[in-house]
Amino acid sequence: MSKEFPQISSPTLLIDEKRCKANIERMADKARRHNLELRPHFKTHQSADIADWFRSYNTKAITVSSLTMAKYFARNGWKDITIAFPANIRAVDKINSLPNTLEKLTLLINESTPIKELGTQLNNEVHVFIEIDTGSHRTGVDPNDLNSLDSLVNQVMGMDQLEFSGFYSHPGHSYAARSRSEILEVHRYVLDIMSALRNRYEHTSEKLTICIGDTPCSSVADEFNSIDSISPGNFVFYDIMQSNIGSCQWNDIAVVLACPIVDKYDDRNEFIVHGGAVHLSKDRIENGDIHYGIPVRLKNEGWDKPLPDSYVKSLSQEHGIIKMSSQAYNSFNVGDLIGILPVHSCLTADLMGGYTSIQGNKFNHIRNS
Amino acid sequence: MSKEFPQISSPTLLIDEKRCKANIERMADKARRHNLELRPHFKTHQSADIADWFRSYNTKAITVSSLTMAKYFARNGWKDITIAFPANIRAVDKINSLPNTLEKLTLLINESTPIKELGTQLNNEVHVFIEIDTGSHRTGVDPNDLNSLDSLVNQVMGMDQLEFSGFYSHPGHSYAARSRSEILEVHRYVLDIMSALRNRYEHTSEKLTICIGDTPCSSVADEFNSIDSISPGNFVFYDIMQSNIGSCQWNDIAVVLACPIVDKYDDRNEFIVHGGAVHLSKDRIENGDIHYGIPVRLKNEGWDKPLPDSYVKSLSQEHGIIKMSSQAYNSFNVGDLIGILPVHSCLTADLMGGYTSIQGNKFNHIRNS
Repeated sequence: MSKEFPQISSPTLLIDEKRCKANIERMADKARRHNLELRPHFKTHQSADIADWFRSYNTKAITVSSLTMAKYFARNGWKDITIAFPANIRAVDKINSLPNTLEKLTLLINESTPIKELGTQLNNEVHVFIEIDTGSHRTGVDPNDLNSLDSLVNQVMGMDQLEFSGFYSHPGHSYAARSRSEILEVHRYVLDIMSALRNRYEHTSEKLTICIGDTPCSSVADEFNSIDSISPGNFVFYDIMQSNIGSCQWNDIAVVLACPIVDKYDDRNEFIVHGGAVHLSKDRIENGDIHYGIPVRLKNEGWDKPLPDSYVKSLSQEHGIIKMSSQAYNSFNVGDLIGILPVHSCLTADLMGGYTSIQGNKFNHIRNS
Repeated sequence: MSKEFPQISSPTLLIDEKRCKANIERMADKARRHNLELRPHFKTHQSADIADWFRSYNTKAITVSSLTMAKYFARNGWKDITIAFPANIRAVDKINSLPNTLEKLTLLINESTPIKELGTQLNNEVHVFIEIDTGSHRTGVDPNDLNSLDSLVNQVMGMDQLEFSGFYSHPGHSYAARSRSEILEVHRYVLDIMSALRNRYEHTSEKLTICIGDTPCSSVADEFNSIDSISPGNFVFYDIMQSNIGSCQWNDIAVVLACPIVDKYDDRNEFIVHGGAVHLSKDRIENGDIHYGIPVRLKNEGWDKPLPDSYVKSLSQEHGIIKMSSQAYNSFNVGDLIGILPVHSCLTADLMGGYTSIQGNKFNHIRNS
């Protein structure tokens, strides 16, 4: 049995605090250089402890994607929260009962019904972003549909409890990019759209705010004209998806799932680990071979680069199958631990419910469901 | 806003107790008719309350897939537990500290290292199944590799703390079947393998036990010669994957995720719901269109059949996009609830951490990570 981490006997999410803090510092520096407000998205780590690392960069406003997270972070002292998810009119009571230490709540509204319902049922004033579909075609108003935009802005401005703040966009189609230049192409397109909106709606608010937020564009771009705020989330940990796109390097990835090797198959160079879909999620990489994660060798001070020609071939509920090169295969045994770099760290972190750091600390977080 | 379930404002896993109990009764009846012991796999529901429904069928022995579940169910009064996952030698201390009310623990061992380690480090005697790879190529010994099998059986029998019980197989390749006849083809192949093993190893044990367990074969097959026990799990809830394979009908599916509709896009007949990968998991159906679930209309007494030509098109962390036929689309609004039948109920149940029943009860369960 390998000597590293003898206390670990089941799948454990390890975080390298140094890498995570370096990722945060790099993004905070970029925001400062470009005179941008960093409103980090906390859906990735969902941890009040990790959230605290942002305080030394003077972060005041944060982003979350559910009322559960808004309540949790408000209770942990965050006073300016954007819920970057279409406002849910069934949850009016939950919105009204958020901690009263929360000084500024911003909701996303893309449609008339929530404007009417929330505008008449909220106890306190909330700020409103209208979301813009800059190409991801998930949520947001078509930026060319000026009639709808004019109408929505006017409806929001006509409600006493709603304060129009500006426009928000999550350019999620940047995740389909396959290189830094493709990311920059998405980013320039987004900037053009948001710049046109600023020109058209500048007069509607004393301080119209334009906020965009995705990890690929925020990591790679170096031009943010017409943008006030960025709200990336995944960059705190990064993952294989981001490394494949070109948002980060392998050695920026700050979390790894430590898994016990429980079985081996010499004829196919495959190890079975305790580490399955309930730990990693079933998000996968599909360019070239399909895989669910990349194995690395764990060391007490962190972890090595990806093992060459090796990958997580499949996941069931608790089992993971790791396919390896002969050389890598021969250097592990049943009873050893092996690390798996996750395809999508946000989902892995949500599933694992907490972190153990290489530096010896433990971090709890909430789970969202 | 629709009138059904006014109290639900966030994704909620609804269970239809009647359907779930009928699924359990049907499987228990089949086991009784074929003189099989039903050792149900509790990884699907992970709930002591639902486990109790099996007691009226005289179920004594159960199956789980982790030490966490074994401990949970032992604490809830189950005395005969099989952990259907390769025994993890890093977890010897956890095995040794399972509740002493547990009378019989059976572990799976497919390799020499765990035999030596567990055979010398366990405090109490455990029973051992050797797992057989009947075609899924995940875990298990090749049934044609008689040298390895002979050697493993002898090694187990040579250890004082290990009691050789027989053979276990999870024919997971039945999930790749696309019809009842394809399932039966897998099943007959499995029976042939297990029957040959019985003949060869009958003499090794006073009562050699052969246990197989997968929901498709257990649901469809009606011949179990040479088999002593079956350990299916998913059948308590079923799901779209099972319905597509032919293991069940639509109206056997006993769980649905109730999701608030938060946004809509008339130009593409798409609703956005609160209900994403952290609720449903990213397991998906890939024959024909790729999808992540099927929408249904919720009623106070349960839910309707699948909405025609409608499916969950994509999932991100919290968002689900539901694509609908025009007719179905026009019958819902922002603020309504809609149900989603999960692709894989085991993963959805693990993520959701509990159930609310149509009949008005609440069920807690553990989460495994």
